[in-house]
Amino acid sequence: MPLVRISLRDTIAASTQRAIADGVHEALVSQIDIPRGDRFQIIEPRQADAFVYDREYLGIEHRDVVFVQIALVRGRSVERKQALYRAIADELAAVGVRREDVVITLTENGREDWSIGNGEAQLLDIEL
Amino acid sequence: MPLVRISLRDTIAASTQRAIADGVHEALVSQIDIPRGDRFQIIEPRQADAFVYDREYLGIEHRDVVFVQIALVRGRSVERKQALYRAIADELAAVGVRREDVVITLTENGREDWSIGNGEAQLLDIEL
Amino acid sequence: MPLVRISLRDTIAASTQRAIADGVHEALVSQIDIPRGDRFQIIEPRQADAFVYDREYLGIEHRDVVFVQIALVRGRSVERKQALYRAIADELAAVGVRREDVVITLTENGREDWSIGNGEAQLLDIEL
Repeated sequence: MPLVRISLRDTIAASTQRAIADGVHEALVSQIDIPRGDRFQIIEPRQADAFVYDREYLGIEHRDVVFVQIALVRGRSVERKQALYRAIADELAAVGVRREDVVITLTENGREDWSIGNGEAQLLDIEL
Repeated sequence: MPLVRISLRDTIAASTQRAIADGVHEALVSQIDIPRGDRFQIIEPRQADAFVYDREYLGIEHRDVVFVQIALVRGRSVERKQALYRAIADELAAVGVRREDVVITLTENGREDWSIGNGEAQLLDIEL
Repeated sequence: MPLVRISLRDTIAASTQRAIADGVHEALVSQIDIPRGDRFQIIEPRQADAFVYDREYLGIEHRDVVFVQIALVRGRSVERKQALYRAIADELAAVGVRREDVVITLTENGREDWSIGNGEAQLLDIEL
């Protein structure tokens, strides 16, 4: 917890893909108190025609969207989520992603909805 | 918002994959008032052995399932969701997908759970 | 329902990938009363650099994680979820996955959030 899926163009260099993943994690650590070791990410590079999105919805010019999908335990305030989005956009801008292209979705669940190994529900026993 | 992931066989022609994505979006626009520009889709073509499903569960003959996974803001009634499913099946049937093969899953979250660019939580500020 | 996505290394033999999928389904059937025919799975093999995770978080030595993401209708107790995790880890260990490497995430929704074909919301009409 959290589980992060990052979907992006396969033309992005592997080192940059990794830097994007690092940036997302750094934002989770700094903004919503995720422990640094609590990192589970899947990077999903895809061809251009795998992505379909509007280029100007709400006046935001999308060109090469990086989709950041985060599953996490519920309980963060709206304000902390907003701070998280800003931090992710800042981190990704620092490695060359246009801020307009950072699209983030959160899906929440409970502590009982995770096992991070050994068939146990570890989050029931630790302080988050 | 919404974010749609469509998982299907990689033997489907690219133009048909796109027509399927178009059809899903058309149903979202017509049935649950998604703005036409509010389109974020990921098309995921996969080999045959990536998909495992029963061929006759509940008497529905599945042959080449198209999985339509939709993350969206909560608040639609059961009736509108039912209308959405009918419309998606109609749209996909029109481009050659068997109605039996249209499998749809919704996952809901809140307005504060989306950033569609620039590190901002735009859905907090607009009427849906 | 449920929809299971299994993300794992593409170096795992196809027959083992399938055995892993079988094991997850067996655990769902035996532990939380999923009908045997109610099986919808997507197996997602990926290259090594698609996965980023800590090797020792909470003292669990992760080497080649198999991510098991399960979307299902809400309502299972914490105890049954714990039994499910144990059973999945047991099943996967039986086909060669290290128990430490079994990472599971649940995402819950409602009966009205599924259509398993024909544009109908079948789960509204049957006993689960």
